[in-house]
Amino acid sequence: MAVYTDISDAELEAFLGDFDLGRPVAFKGVAEGVENSNFMLETEGGRFFLTVYERRVDAGDLPFFLGLLQWLGEHDFPSAIPVADRTGRTLKAIRGKPAALVTFLTGLSVRRPSVAHCRQAGAGLAWLHQAAEAYPGRRRNSLGQAAWRPMFERLTGEANTLKPGLAATIASDLDLLEAHWPSDLPEGIIHADFFPDNVFFTGGAFAGAIDFYFAAWDAFAYDLAVALNAWCFEPDGSFNVTAARALIDGYEQKRTLTEAEKAALPLLAHGAAMRFFLTRLNDWRATPAGSLVRPKDPLEYERKLAVHRAGVSLFSAAA
Amino acid sequence: MAVYTDISDAELEAFLGDFDLGRPVAFKGVAEGVENSNFMLETEGGRFFLTVYERRVDAGDLPFFLGLLQWLGEHDFPSAIPVADRTGRTLKAIRGKPAALVTFLTGLSVRRPSVAHCRQAGAGLAWLHQAAEAYPGRRRNSLGQAAWRPMFERLTGEANTLKPGLAATIASDLDLLEAHWPSDLPEGIIHADFFPDNVFFTGGAFAGAIDFYFAAWDAFAYDLAVALNAWCFEPDGSFNVTAARALIDGYEQKRTLTEAEKAALPLLAHGAAMRFFLTRLNDWRATPAGSLVRPKDPLEYERKLAVHRAGVSLFSAAA
Repeated sequence: MAVYTDISDAELEAFLGDFDLGRPVAFKGVAEGVENSNFMLETEGGRFFLTVYERRVDAGDLPFFLGLLQWLGEHDFPSAIPVADRTGRTLKAIRGKPAALVTFLTGLSVRRPSVAHCRQAGAGLAWLHQAAEAYPGRRRNSLGQAAWRPMFERLTGEANTLKPGLAATIASDLDLLEAHWPSDLPEGIIHADFFPDNVFFTGGAFAGAIDFYFAAWDAFAYDLAVALNAWCFEPDGSFNVTAARALIDGYEQKRTLTEAEKAALPLLAHGAAMRFFLTRLNDWRATPAGSLVRPKDPLEYERKLAVHRAGVSLFSAAA
Repeated sequence: MAVYTDISDAELEAFLGDFDLGRPVAFKGVAEGVENSNFMLETEGGRFFLTVYERRVDAGDLPFFLGLLQWLGEHDFPSAIPVADRTGRTLKAIRGKPAALVTFLTGLSVRRPSVAHCRQAGAGLAWLHQAAEAYPGRRRNSLGQAAWRPMFERLTGEANTLKPGLAATIASDLDLLEAHWPSDLPEGIIHADFFPDNVFFTGGAFAGAIDFYFAAWDAFAYDLAVALNAWCFEPDGSFNVTAARALIDGYEQKRTLTEAEKAALPLLAHGAAMRFFLTRLNDWRATPAGSLVRPKDPLEYERKLAVHRAGVSLFSAAA
């Protein structure tokens, strides 16, 4: 939950003055998103979501992200669509920080996804890959495989603090991932953070995705691997193969995986667990005591790493 | 900002199963209210606000609060109106905690009230006093004058930690307030927490009040005194007499103050500052390091106490 920027009445008025949306009728900080400040804004002209971009999001990437959302809206993929001001601009500023107004996307995220939700989510992810296919924007995945070793080299002490001896295990994981990471899988725009809290459902059916602020150009199957880690582990840390099969089947209803993609999925899921383990370890280290934001537990992804390291044939159903 | 209770999909579904509001289409935690967890809930049947009652609110008081909101709705005062389930109940439970669904009240709170806002707020407060006048529910003000000395006796150490020597000053304030506290002013249902974040405006006009969870039976003028402290101090700690005059004038547009009420206002404002100083000092002490909720600064009200202690003729304009 996060509202880092408190917007004054005058700032909101000045911001809305650039748009033709009428007067504000409701404005509430929303406990959603860890990276940015989010507000529900209702005006005489409709309902919107206002995001003020805080740490981690590189302002230089915002035209890519907002352009992607615009593109998805034009290609009928359900996501929040940026609203342009009177001069055609979608990237705005509030209190010296970048900000954007987007349409309000209805739907509910699920806290405990069922197998049926996983199937819907898989189909939604493939839909997203197809809808974004011809988007001309490009962004390197700055949290992709090449980034993990340099990230880890600053975190070896923290890894051993988290669990004695963990740094050596992670180093060996990184060797394995480097040696076998595939470079010839089908690529395109990926969401890269397709977690249950970023996916909306209405009446159990996929209703859209939000929070595209890690989107980048990378392997489609890596995006699916991120989702497998995010959707298919039980609270006790066990991997739910039935849920994984449903997610993959749902994906393949829209886009068929190549044999190379299927074969790579276990390694990609191992790598995807590494990416979230490292960023969570970094956030855990960087969060000052008494902070308003509770960092996500790096141990959750340490346990997922261990599952993938054990190399059980998780994806046999997809082969 | 606060969402203390994370509501699962199954819990929301079970809750909505008791109502005839259709399926949920949006559900978001709202960064609003320090005492309770609040959610914006949209269903096929409309837009609502779901509150899960957490600490401080005594469950035994909830029928009084919900009955008051119901009464205000029936008497055309703009506030959130409790929604009854199929069996006529408004007080429900989620995850073993009391919970209630109310209608979504539109309007925006102001962070920096203008003099015009103060006038509107004063009129809104008098309107509330009149609308609630015949409400049959009764609740003693558990944070009223009689409660302050027992509260303070547990906080003398914290007062001196906050500012050396402060405990003796507060004790002398309490003597003064006890000696002169009026007991014969007009009484009725008061809001008791009529702060800018609990008051909504639309296009600059009073649009309603929320957060009635301190409402009680007490002197109307004490409610006005709470509002004077909350609305009429500048960020630099100075008291804005023009804003105070506007608040009182606005109030008197709807309900004329008696001479005794006017004469008592400076002392009531001193007492109202004491009430918020003491609860903030208590929360400041009770908040564990690393808590997600930042306690409100008790020093803000220590400074307001000092202004009232100096006894400048703040309310001459109202005499």
